[in-house]
Amino acid sequence: MKEPHSIGPGRIIRRKKDGSLEYLRDDLTIEEPLEIRIGRKTLATTMRTPGHDDELAAGFLVSEAIVQRRDAIVEISAERDNRVAVSFAEGVKLKLNSAQRFGTISSSCGLCGKTSIDEIRQNFPAIESGNVRLDIETLLSLPEKLRKAQSDFSRTGGIHAAGIFDSNGELKIVREDIGRHNAVDKAIGRAFFDGWLPLSQHVLLVSGRASFEIIQKALAAGIPIVAAVSAPSTLAVDFARESNQTLVGFLRPPSFNVYSHIERVILEPL
Amino acid sequence: MKEPHSIGPGRIIRRKKDGSLEYLRDDLTIEEPLEIRIGRKTLATTMRTPGHDDELAAGFLVSEAIVQRRDAIVEISAERDNRVAVSFAEGVKLKLNSAQRFGTISSSCGLCGKTSIDEIRQNFPAIESGNVRLDIETLLSLPEKLRKAQSDFSRTGGIHAAGIFDSNGELKIVREDIGRHNAVDKAIGRAFFDGWLPLSQHVLLVSGRASFEIIQKALAAGIPIVAAVSAPSTLAVDFARESNQTLVGFLRPPSFNVYSHIERVILEPL
Repeated sequence: MKEPHSIGPGRIIRRKKDGSLEYLRDDLTIEEPLEIRIGRKTLATTMRTPGHDDELAAGFLVSEAIVQRRDAIVEISAERDNRVAVSFAEGVKLKLNSAQRFGTISSSCGLCGKTSIDEIRQNFPAIESGNVRLDIETLLSLPEKLRKAQSDFSRTGGIHAAGIFDSNGELKIVREDIGRHNAVDKAIGRAFFDGWLPLSQHVLLVSGRASFEIIQKALAAGIPIVAAVSAPSTLAVDFARESNQTLVGFLRPPSFNVYSHIERVILEPL
Repeated sequence: MKEPHSIGPGRIIRRKKDGSLEYLRDDLTIEEPLEIRIGRKTLATTMRTPGHDDELAAGFLVSEAIVQRRDAIVEISAERDNRVAVSFAEGVKLKLNSAQRFGTISSSCGLCGKTSIDEIRQNFPAIESGNVRLDIETLLSLPEKLRKAQSDFSRTGGIHAAGIFDSNGELKIVREDIGRHNAVDKAIGRAFFDGWLPLSQHVLLVSGRASFEIIQKALAAGIPIVAAVSAPSTLAVDFARESNQTLVGFLRPPSFNVYSHIERVILEPL
């Protein structure tokens, strides 16, 4: 290379394992703002990885308890780059109350814009006790299936994935984003468009940590089992216990932890 | 155990590597809201791991460009659990403009409450080109030093660390929190109390990813070199380039990437 120690636009310098240096293309996950509009009003601006923006908006509306039914939305369309507009069916009354988020949302955040802790908690009913159960082999098979379905993770190491599986462990939807809550919103938005909600026989797996917001988004979609590759937060555990959701953390085969409602995991006797 | 398949409060069930099950104490990192008050007004509520709350508040005030000088603050005191109050020196004029954040801040978020992308960017001056430089061996030694100084990481796997090092690689401050931006605020707050700002000869290392907010917090403290064990975001890279900060990512010895201002890293010729 000619330029000994400078980095051009879109380039990085990498020190390799053998100690030598090389110039590489800067191959980072793109992070841009998406503005979600209702009419001319901005509902929220979120930092996200572009792609599946309509699903992201739909999942956000479901997670925020703004819409429940598929037929409430006529269309979610791109008005221009980084902006989508939601068209509601005639007669739909929006529940845009004080608990709604407005303003800018970081790619790492699912709580932005809430003005108090009490507002954070939407009022979704707890999951009903049903008959969905997972055996251990199925549970242990999920992370590898999610990883195989990911397109960008190994390339950049900076992207989260969310997968929705059925109770046989079949991967139905996978979405990626630099923000883990966006990945979940996109996956739920896809299920919403396909008329699958509530996902009462399904499992949500996230590639990183399980935050409170992730568990609440799953609850909004009616998902009874949430698994995470990394740690859950204490708020996430408390929320899952109260909302009758099974929460699995540190799902790293052959090990995992169960934090709540273990009755949905088919275990050998202790 | 008597109860075959239920989980009591504060307990989890773990599947071990050999396939057997055991009950364990639920040893998660605590996450509770901290309210930061100025007089009777709430400046922000952030989800954080309790401890070093005065430093967290001070670092937050510095990062948000609300205070610069040590003598602007008389005291930051705990009013009760989960609430601190900031007392300013007489005559201090607060710059609480539209760019300030109010409301609830997630433990994973450094942007909450901002109402537009433009507001996200505080107007700190770029770092001046100075004479601080790091050699590769020093840079490569930092992650292990940070890990050794961490108290909780290995136990829960759910906590972030931020370390401030001098240019000889000596660890001066280390702080931990469930939120990576809180860990950085606590470390900067400690340096603020000790009268060390600006940290023009120092390096900030974070245990996870480098978000835009982390780079900006470093800039607020005058830190010229930021290193992260994981990926930076694209906004972080753009910001570091503009603000004359050196940004190192994927610092996993013996490898690392340099994304901006490589002149502060002493490299062998390519």
